[in-house]
Amino acid sequence: MTPPGGVHGLAEHLEQLALVDHHVHGVWTEDADAARLANAFNEADTAPLADPSSAWDTQLGFAVRRWCAPLLDLEPHPAPETYLRRRAELGETEVARRLLDGTNVSDWLVDTGWSRDLSSPAGLAALGGGTGREIVRLETLAEELLPTLDDPADWADAFAARVEDAARRCVGFKSVIAYRCGFAVDLAPPAPEAVAEAARRWQAGLEDGAAPRLDDPTLVVSGLYAALRTRRPLQLHVGFGDRDLDLASVDPLLLTDLLRRPEVRGVPVMLLHCYPYERHAGYLAQAFPEVHLDVGLATHFLGARAPGVVARSLELAPFRQVLYSSDAAGPAELHHLGARLWRNAMAQVLGGWVEAGDWSVDDARRVATLVGRDNARRAYDLD
Amino acid sequence: MTPPGGVHGLAEHLEQLALVDHHVHGVWTEDADAARLANAFNEADTAPLADPSSAWDTQLGFAVRRWCAPLLDLEPHPAPETYLRRRAELGETEVARRLLDGTNVSDWLVDTGWSRDLSSPAGLAALGGGTGREIVRLETLAEELLPTLDDPADWADAFAARVEDAARRCVGFKSVIAYRCGFAVDLAPPAPEAVAEAARRWQAGLEDGAAPRLDDPTLVVSGLYAALRTRRPLQLHVGFGDRDLDLASVDPLLLTDLLRRPEVRGVPVMLLHCYPYERHAGYLAQAFPEVHLDVGLATHFLGARAPGVVARSLELAPFRQVLYSSDAAGPAELHHLGARLWRNAMAQVLGGWVEAGDWSVDDARRVATLVGRDNARRAYDLD
Amino acid sequence: MTPPGGVHGLAEHLEQLALVDHHVHGVWTEDADAARLANAFNEADTAPLADPSSAWDTQLGFAVRRWCAPLLDLEPHPAPETYLRRRAELGETEVARRLLDGTNVSDWLVDTGWSRDLSSPAGLAALGGGTGREIVRLETLAEELLPTLDDPADWADAFAARVEDAARRCVGFKSVIAYRCGFAVDLAPPAPEAVAEAARRWQAGLEDGAAPRLDDPTLVVSGLYAALRTRRPLQLHVGFGDRDLDLASVDPLLLTDLLRRPEVRGVPVMLLHCYPYERHAGYLAQAFPEVHLDVGLATHFLGARAPGVVARSLELAPFRQVLYSSDAAGPAELHHLGARLWRNAMAQVLGGWVEAGDWSVDDARRVATLVGRDNARRAYDLD
Repeated sequence: MTPPGGVHGLAEHLEQLALVDHHVHGVWTEDADAARLANAFNEADTAPLADPSSAWDTQLGFAVRRWCAPLLDLEPHPAPETYLRRRAELGETEVARRLLDGTNVSDWLVDTGWSRDLSSPAGLAALGGGTGREIVRLETLAEELLPTLDDPADWADAFAARVEDAARRCVGFKSVIAYRCGFAVDLAPPAPEAVAEAARRWQAGLEDGAAPRLDDPTLVVSGLYAALRTRRPLQLHVGFGDRDLDLASVDPLLLTDLLRRPEVRGVPVMLLHCYPYERHAGYLAQAFPEVHLDVGLATHFLGARAPGVVARSLELAPFRQVLYSSDAAGPAELHHLGARLWRNAMAQVLGGWVEAGDWSVDDARRVATLVGRDNARRAYDLD
Repeated sequence: MTPPGGVHGLAEHLEQLALVDHHVHGVWTEDADAARLANAFNEADTAPLADPSSAWDTQLGFAVRRWCAPLLDLEPHPAPETYLRRRAELGETEVARRLLDGTNVSDWLVDTGWSRDLSSPAGLAALGGGTGREIVRLETLAEELLPTLDDPADWADAFAARVEDAARRCVGFKSVIAYRCGFAVDLAPPAPEAVAEAARRWQAGLEDGAAPRLDDPTLVVSGLYAALRTRRPLQLHVGFGDRDLDLASVDPLLLTDLLRRPEVRGVPVMLLHCYPYERHAGYLAQAFPEVHLDVGLATHFLGARAPGVVARSLELAPFRQVLYSSDAAGPAELHHLGARLWRNAMAQVLGGWVEAGDWSVDDARRVATLVGRDNARRAYDLD
Repeated sequence: MTPPGGVHGLAEHLEQLALVDHHVHGVWTEDADAARLANAFNEADTAPLADPSSAWDTQLGFAVRRWCAPLLDLEPHPAPETYLRRRAELGETEVARRLLDGTNVSDWLVDTGWSRDLSSPAGLAALGGGTGREIVRLETLAEELLPTLDDPADWADAFAARVEDAARRCVGFKSVIAYRCGFAVDLAPPAPEAVAEAARRWQAGLEDGAAPRLDDPTLVVSGLYAALRTRRPLQLHVGFGDRDLDLASVDPLLLTDLLRRPEVRGVPVMLLHCYPYERHAGYLAQAFPEVHLDVGLATHFLGARAPGVVARSLELAPFRQVLYSSDAAGPAELHHLGARLWRNAMAQVLGGWVEAGDWSVDDARRVATLVGRDNARRAYDLD
């Protein structure tokens, strides 16, 4: 009974809408074997999977076989071995080209802070079309700064200078405070002496030749305020990630005190992923006009269950504060599924409200456009 | 295939059921402009909305345009400007009369503790039909008492006397401990000396001419026990509210120790709103026969998503312990939507179980009647 | 439009699949009156229900009348009195025989640590068919050991010997640490002196003639490690239970540090029930290959809402790490509903994904078999 293109053309509207993927990483630049692919299909487990085949028996694995296989000239739902064989025949670059081509993304906002073996923003755009733009990760900036700093007492100024410099080339900043110390720390601006002392401690503790890893809460939090001062949007990893984080300590409600601070006023704060705390994030979006949220990462990991998380992101949050992202990284299957499953979910969820008589179809199309494109264009000032 | 009136007349049964709205506030008594209305459409944000139009791009805004517009002689889903223009033409009182008329509520249990520019219980009933009854807010009672008290050592007795006096005219009490100190405080009965000392501190800290605001946990908690002694139902704000509260500290599970206390035995405890903790509240309702819950406030803020929260309130909670409320305050749109969306949701949720063969239609009608009317009549002794 | 047997025979496949119920208790061995049955229908309330009829106005009560009545020769949805009368006519054993017969369970893994008036594993299998196997409850083992121990300094060795001995006859261990101290305690292996001291304290505090009850965190946690050393699967009660526990302190995320420990590597850890934290449990299953989960207990308490919790258990968790259990105890209605509602839910949830084109029907049948049977057979080494 549903006409082609879904409820009153809503699905078709979603297909034709060029998305802003406001939080994404590059694709692999070299061919990957079965084990590497399987491990990329498991976000949470940081140890190599003992049995890579287990990664295929997941919602993500099923979604790859359903939605990506046809773009590699296979029937939907092939055996994982069949999929792997075909993938190897085509090679990583051709796989990426085909899967990215199906995303219809106009702007890739790429977090370049975790980029080992991943394409650059420009490289991603070259394969997938559209424009690549940079999101700078604060902790990476700090880790690059540390070995070059003569006097840790200069930390605050030196870091602020790096951030200001980065602000000239990037469209936003990102913090992975979630992974470094969680949100259950003092989120007020640290005193200058505390920052200097923390920098001294960090530098002193650095082992010869070891890559520095920032996990001191004082420096991490101090970095958030340095970014806020630039007025660029600030992305925060929230919720589900790998087991290095404590999921209980990355509930966005723990950010409430930070969000109340005057330094946040007027600066877009992007709560990324949010699963399973998307209702908490939605409340914060209603409470603070600066708060935006997306359910990227969750979308492709939930596969057939993605409509639920998309629907939950549209409860308390004002619709001008919800964004699209894939948070894909590595295999282009993730980039493809981010867009595919989001479009499917939006068509199903918004279409359901239209069919039930709760929403008008014009509103549904308008909200799809806001979430998929316009909210990001406005928040990141992309025009 | 579904007959008129929904599954076996369930929807019709719900329309004809006169509801007890066991937690509500008055309607505005003066005309409101666009900015005031928009701010009333955002519960969480305590700052004036920078862009009032954003409040219309929400589930609540869409629900107002869908369900309230026809009662103002407009087509469903008009532009917000059209709606505002028509609203201004009719004036606040005529708008309220039309929207309240559609609620079919027999009893309004009105929290009079937050009443600036709002109609009284009698005024609400005069516009909407039925009977207005009073719920007395404990913190307001305390704030009225403070300036009149000569010796803070008399606090406990003087407050108990006020509560007992109020119990003669009201059908229940309400506490907003959620807003004043949250639930993560010591909920055991405070010692008399601690209460006297807290009253002394509060009185001493009061600035000349300032309206007293009670947020001392000792006095707030002491007030709960004063109310419990009257055996009147005790309403507690739980979950979602404005950003003055810490949503993480108003999880009803934090009330478990209070609910275990002997002072609670036999006194109905009403967990209001509960979103997004309605599953936690349902567990408490199964664990303690005194615990009742509703999902008011959430219903109208979730709009098209209201059926989900209504369904979740019917998981672990025994059906004799679930109630209806709107928690509407101010614009009569909220009063109307509370009833409209609850009826729609109940018809959809219970009707779905009947259609699936899980429930009998007789049970569905009976549960609708329990939740919409009879549980409140029994708990508040309204007959 | 759906063919007989559901989507492509999925429902029929589920009916014919003989289940492993990996966590269950015995059935009552003596006739029960109305009050006893009603109290068994309320998991959370530890006090006798003031009004036993209220237990029937619940999702569980409705599910009993819908699904169990026909097996007692009644129409679906009889009045509770009718059901009780017929139940009394048949007697507990005949009721159990009829209700268990409909479960099609091949293996009952019976927690024998809470067994008052309940059938043994062999007794359960004699009534319900299949094989009964034992799960040994660690806290019960400790409470049996205490009175026999001459010197509490020997606790660790003596308890380890009991556990090793039990490992020869049982297929796994269970801990109810959730009820004894919650998960918000130090979960690292306690030092030997701390264990000895705790045993001394426990023995000294034991009142003459009183049954010992283990709730000392040091001894409870020490017991977990004794069980882990046997490499047998370790079951942990998680989430919803009776009001003796603090639901907030049995969130499985509080187990993260335990799950990170080397002692856990390679030992199946079974998170039981999990409601309302099933999404948290699913994250842990993706993060740690040892973690398995089920939604037993919740299934029958949620009745018509069971499909939701089953669906949520199939989000982040790899499908090889999700299991079936009933967690039934006492009236055989619970054993029956565990299986009935799980099969209904799986047919609906997986069937829905097949109908939507997200999953292949072969995958749906395979995942049903993994969850219902094969994952348990592998984890408990039942072949």
